[in-house]
Amino acid sequence: MVLDQIQLADGISRVEIAQRTGLTPQTVSGIVRRLLDEQIVREDGASRVAGGGKPRTTLRVNADAGSAVGLVLDPLELTCSVVDLLGRPLVVKRRPTPPGTDPSHVVAAMAELVADVLAKAGVPRDKVLGLGLVTPGPIDQQSGVIVAPPQLAHWTRVPLQQMLGDATGLPVTLDNDATAAAVGERWAGRAKGVANVAYLFFGTGIGGGLILNHQVYRGGSRNAGEFGHSTVLSDGPECYCGNRGCLERLVNPSAIVAETHRRLAERSGTGGSALARSYAQDPALVDHAAIQRAAGAGDPVATAVVDEAARHVASVAVSIANFIDVDLIILGGQGIQHVESRYVEAVASVLAARPLARHIRVVEVAASALGTDAAVVGSAALVLHAAYSPQLSELVSA
Amino acid sequence: MVLDQIQLADGISRVEIAQRTGLTPQTVSGIVRRLLDEQIVREDGASRVAGGGKPRTTLRVNADAGSAVGLVLDPLELTCSVVDLLGRPLVVKRRPTPPGTDPSHVVAAMAELVADVLAKAGVPRDKVLGLGLVTPGPIDQQSGVIVAPPQLAHWTRVPLQQMLGDATGLPVTLDNDATAAAVGERWAGRAKGVANVAYLFFGTGIGGGLILNHQVYRGGSRNAGEFGHSTVLSDGPECYCGNRGCLERLVNPSAIVAETHRRLAERSGTGGSALARSYAQDPALVDHAAIQRAAGAGDPVATAVVDEAARHVASVAVSIANFIDVDLIILGGQGIQHVESRYVEAVASVLAARPLARHIRVVEVAASALGTDAAVVGSAALVLHAAYSPQLSELVSA
Repeated sequence: MVLDQIQLADGISRVEIAQRTGLTPQTVSGIVRRLLDEQIVREDGASRVAGGGKPRTTLRVNADAGSAVGLVLDPLELTCSVVDLLGRPLVVKRRPTPPGTDPSHVVAAMAELVADVLAKAGVPRDKVLGLGLVTPGPIDQQSGVIVAPPQLAHWTRVPLQQMLGDATGLPVTLDNDATAAAVGERWAGRAKGVANVAYLFFGTGIGGGLILNHQVYRGGSRNAGEFGHSTVLSDGPECYCGNRGCLERLVNPSAIVAETHRRLAERSGTGGSALARSYAQDPALVDHAAIQRAAGAGDPVATAVVDEAARHVASVAVSIANFIDVDLIILGGQGIQHVESRYVEAVASVLAARPLARHIRVVEVAASALGTDAAVVGSAALVLHAAYSPQLSELVSA
Repeated sequence: MVLDQIQLADGISRVEIAQRTGLTPQTVSGIVRRLLDEQIVREDGASRVAGGGKPRTTLRVNADAGSAVGLVLDPLELTCSVVDLLGRPLVVKRRPTPPGTDPSHVVAAMAELVADVLAKAGVPRDKVLGLGLVTPGPIDQQSGVIVAPPQLAHWTRVPLQQMLGDATGLPVTLDNDATAAAVGERWAGRAKGVANVAYLFFGTGIGGGLILNHQVYRGGSRNAGEFGHSTVLSDGPECYCGNRGCLERLVNPSAIVAETHRRLAERSGTGGSALARSYAQDPALVDHAAIQRAAGAGDPVATAVVDEAARHVASVAVSIANFIDVDLIILGGQGIQHVESRYVEAVASVLAARPLARHIRVVEVAASALGTDAAVVGSAALVLHAAYSPQLSELVSA
């Protein structure tokens, strides 16, 4: 809690920490002494006190005292970052994921990338607290195993945590992309200091992460935050998950491309659409990236499709507000790149009009401050969060 | 945590507490000594240990060491209970809510009822830890004020907590019915020992309570658990809340009566329906209570209406499972009396088929073990929970 206050504030004194946490000054002093000994915190000058009392020493996180590495394993691309103790990325690097089906090739490539990134950042390995690895698909955190990632053939129950730990010499933490992004925003982005946060992560599908009462909330089976699988159209199409009319079934890159193509083929509302001209030339030119860019630039067909998708997202945001009563909803991920503001506006207008408690306070919504780096910064922040955040929920559930 | 283990177990030793909590034997012994001194816990014989070690003393909650009073204020009826330290109701009494609009008359009636119940239970006032008061509609917990309860005209910002405290001499805790019911189930009902629980409370509307990581979760504006206001029909009727096609708009006593009358008037599927005969005699005979009883007895019209309502509830249960990943969903309240099992079956079959994580584990569903007493037992359990549960979330959010 003490470190949390120091991390949240841009300079804070022992007295202020005691006031904000309700701890006694003695307790705060004792804890600060230990943090200073471990060099996690540093003293940074003193501030005068109005009325001429004893000047108070300002405490800050010693950002260079340690760092963490984040790694995102995507079927097509590996992304790696190293962040300082404040969660600020020092270096971010990408390389293609080696093709083929052998996990050991992929692990070797990951270890190389980690070494590259550390060298480029000038961070010695013994200053690295750990490595946060983020992977698609179901993981078993207890055993450090990837269960059956989509698009990685034959990767059934690969002990990736162990393999990557052996290859890099670093302790490895495994998590999913949405939880990592939420932790990243909480540590270094929009959610800094916010108690209750829902993160909607738009990738190939729609995942989610939850921070409740300042803690990562994972749920009883560690699968909380599956916001993509709420029925938004009661007579909608079947979803692969077994449910009907799911948000993710309607709002995903393929569905958005299909809907855009349908409208372009029907030539309804296509006047002035640059996308319509591309489509006439070659429908394959109108892929998801092109649609997002066109919507960002105001193309009428693309904006109509994106706005319909955003309305579905907004409807789920109302349920999130009514069920979980979060303070802030963050939207992020590659899937809404270039059109973040259209999604944010659609969600904001509905959050002001529909949740039951809107007269008490309106839930805020924001685009991820970390953008498409949310997952990779978040994967490193997972290490910081595990090392330094108050893990009280663990204590209670023991 | 130590008391929580003693309360959950039916007799437990210090060694077992240490094993289950991860605390050191020394810490456990110290805490147990204090609980024994305060007479909250008692020693109850010893159990032999296999292999002939030192016998272990069995610890139990001293159920008679204290008690709590619960009071439910409904526009039509006051209900009052006194429970022991294990949350077991000793006495439950009801009386009509005094008509009229003067809060002081209602407070006087409440104080009388509390005195009655304590006398009947033979509990002296100095053994009462406090009084949990449950009211309909929005409350402001910080100031102990009822904001604007439905059906209680002119009750705008009544300082009920203060008034009732003065009238009874007991410390008063204020909360809503659904949260109280959830706490009651956690303390003395189906949710004992379960980490993550969602309670769906069927009253005039549909409210909800959440226990997450063993703690009451209230949300950022203290309005979490509004499960009644999720859109289940995307083209459904407008709800008073501002949203469309809400669960509560479709599943509430008036809506269920209207739908039953519509079917009875159309005479479709009414063969063998006792309800159809009542309706032919006088439509007013077919009220909500009659429909619930008829559905409980298998009447074809009533069961069709209830089963449709249950399907809507099941659809929301899937979102609760996907969003919050609770271990258990409890259904309770007057609104599903006589038809609890139809609702439980409908929800169970959908929870086995639709949530994304169902292959990892299927979320359980159960009818409230406390039945229609859930709110009044829960209102007393609120006092026990506030006094004895580990309030770590409060600590972290400080």
